[in-house]
Amino acid sequence: MKAPKSEETQTRARVSPSTQTATLAEIARQAGVSAPTVSKVLNGRADVAPATRTRVEELLREYGYRRRRAEATRSPLIDLVFHELESAWAMEVIRGVENVAREEGLSVVLSESAGRLTPGRTWADQVAARRPHGVVLVLSGLDESQRALLTSRSIPFVVMDPAGDPGADVPSIGATNWQGGLAATRHLIELGHERIGAISGPSRMMCSRARVDGYRAALETAELPVDPELIKAGDFHHETGYRLGLELLRRPDRPTAIFAGNDLQALGLYEAARELGLRIPEDLSVVGFDDLPVARWVGPPLTTVRQPLMEMAEAAARLVLDLGRQEGAGGAATSVELATSLVVRSSTGEPPAV
Amino acid sequence: MKAPKSEETQTRARVSPSTQTATLAEIARQAGVSAPTVSKVLNGRADVAPATRTRVEELLREYGYRRRRAEATRSPLIDLVFHELESAWAMEVIRGVENVAREEGLSVVLSESAGRLTPGRTWADQVAARRPHGVVLVLSGLDESQRALLTSRSIPFVVMDPAGDPGADVPSIGATNWQGGLAATRHLIELGHERIGAISGPSRMMCSRARVDGYRAALETAELPVDPELIKAGDFHHETGYRLGLELLRRPDRPTAIFAGNDLQALGLYEAARELGLRIPEDLSVVGFDDLPVARWVGPPLTTVRQPLMEMAEAAARLVLDLGRQEGAGGAATSVELATSLVVRSSTGEPPAV
Repeated sequence: MKAPKSEETQTRARVSPSTQTATLAEIARQAGVSAPTVSKVLNGRADVAPATRTRVEELLREYGYRRRRAEATRSPLIDLVFHELESAWAMEVIRGVENVAREEGLSVVLSESAGRLTPGRTWADQVAARRPHGVVLVLSGLDESQRALLTSRSIPFVVMDPAGDPGADVPSIGATNWQGGLAATRHLIELGHERIGAISGPSRMMCSRARVDGYRAALETAELPVDPELIKAGDFHHETGYRLGLELLRRPDRPTAIFAGNDLQALGLYEAARELGLRIPEDLSVVGFDDLPVARWVGPPLTTVRQPLMEMAEAAARLVLDLGRQEGAGGAATSVELATSLVVRSSTGEPPAV
Repeated sequence: MKAPKSEETQTRARVSPSTQTATLAEIARQAGVSAPTVSKVLNGRADVAPATRTRVEELLREYGYRRRRAEATRSPLIDLVFHELESAWAMEVIRGVENVAREEGLSVVLSESAGRLTPGRTWADQVAARRPHGVVLVLSGLDESQRALLTSRSIPFVVMDPAGDPGADVPSIGATNWQGGLAATRHLIELGHERIGAISGPSRMMCSRARVDGYRAALETAELPVDPELIKAGDFHHETGYRLGLELLRRPDRPTAIFAGNDLQALGLYEAARELGLRIPEDLSVVGFDDLPVARWVGPPLTTVRQPLMEMAEAAARLVLDLGRQEGAGGAATSVELATSLVVRSSTGEPPAV
């Protein structure tokens, strides 16, 4: 099916060759559909057959088609995508994005990429169809085709706490994880600990690598040996803290202090210590990371590295909305790390007398 | 501006007088806009002036206009509204709704009514404009005009854990709160406790009333006195558990056991007991309500009444989607209470010897 000649001319007349490599009518011709059908796909209308939508989307992507007047046709939504929806950690992030969304009269669409580090293919098509003001990705990233699809629709995106290495051109908001690991471990060294273990999150995540590197740097600058046997990598769950905690604490030369990768792991470690009859902090000092509300509530209250999760989420939401407003302004990507800080409570103390 | 005669006739011809009290063209005439403008409002298009949208929305509401073919024009969204977004409690609910949404290829739009028991006016208009498959309200309800607006758009809604009294015609999913309060208190009575206190959630919330009533019923059927001085109503936060816990535990005739309105209050109570040097369970037995993940992690692990939050949220999401599919089928509202169950851990034991 060919688009009528007059429409093609009209479309082409409005196109600026610098931003547009194919007209709507050309894409329609290649896809074998009418120009209004391409329009429907562009506008996210529901009455297009899935196969047609896919074919048109592919051509739009291929030609780097850029929609104009994105502002006018945006839905009052902001997309928030999690690697996994779990724990009070995610709740802090949700609250931060909700705060900004409420101020701006937007609603938040929540998705979970179900443990994968990039959301599924359907997800990107749905986002393109619903045209949010922007996308905040938490501990996850986008693949090339997803980035191209969002870019073609002028939908900006920001990564919060990048999981992998998002690339220098991706705007991101993080926390000073390395500094946090350094501060936590220095606190333990100052208390007199010399055998300090570490339980970390997954090593494929940059934030957990950075924390362990900070721990290592603290030991090295204090001229204490780094014993690889005392560093255990797991994931960010309670269960890991418990299991790896038991491994570390059952050693004949067990550490007198452990830096956990996050608060949930620290709570798992509490459980392991309880099971082995070790008192915190008398027999074992524990430092967590995050400062979730629960850190104050456990017994003893947890010494931890606070990262300002709600503020980070607010910053990510504000950044993505700003990017949407400066559409086409280009410019360098913005990457910001908010400061972490050590919060000393009652789970750390001097090492036991030998 | 009058709608053209031909269009009016055409519109009217498709209208069934039983469900429709005003045609689109009549509404357009009254609003002083064109019929296509009314269509745009109905279809949630962005290119309508806010004042016009409001005027048209009001007329649509007034005339109880019902959209036809709601299925075809729905967005692949499901709305989830919280009274307040806080704590791991909300996270369990979000995960349940996400599970169902993912199965159905839908995305979840999250809103918070910022502590009010009904979401704001703007919220309802936004929902009407984005046309989700349905709305799940958590611990909140809708006022008359909001219900009318959603009903006019054939957008079904379900209340999870109704806060007030949602009315017999509102579909709802809850838990057997009364049974839970009964089971928790009977457990304490069986251990030998006779002075049992209660810290409850807000009395305007039906779920917290039901829990306290179950507590009272357990005492009465065991022929133990109900001492109103030992029943403290607060809200569902940690802080309340701490503050009211101190009040109860500082009494000269302090209770030997306390039934907390939820797990967060129980954790606050732990803190109060710690501060006063009381050991759990040797000096004080504590029962919570919810069974959040953290209940297993605290020391000592918390005896609590489990309510299947994720399953309740899944049931609410499935119910609202089912209601959307049976559109117009009418029928009685569905209200379901899922079973609660007592989970005995280490925070309850025999009362201290006098």
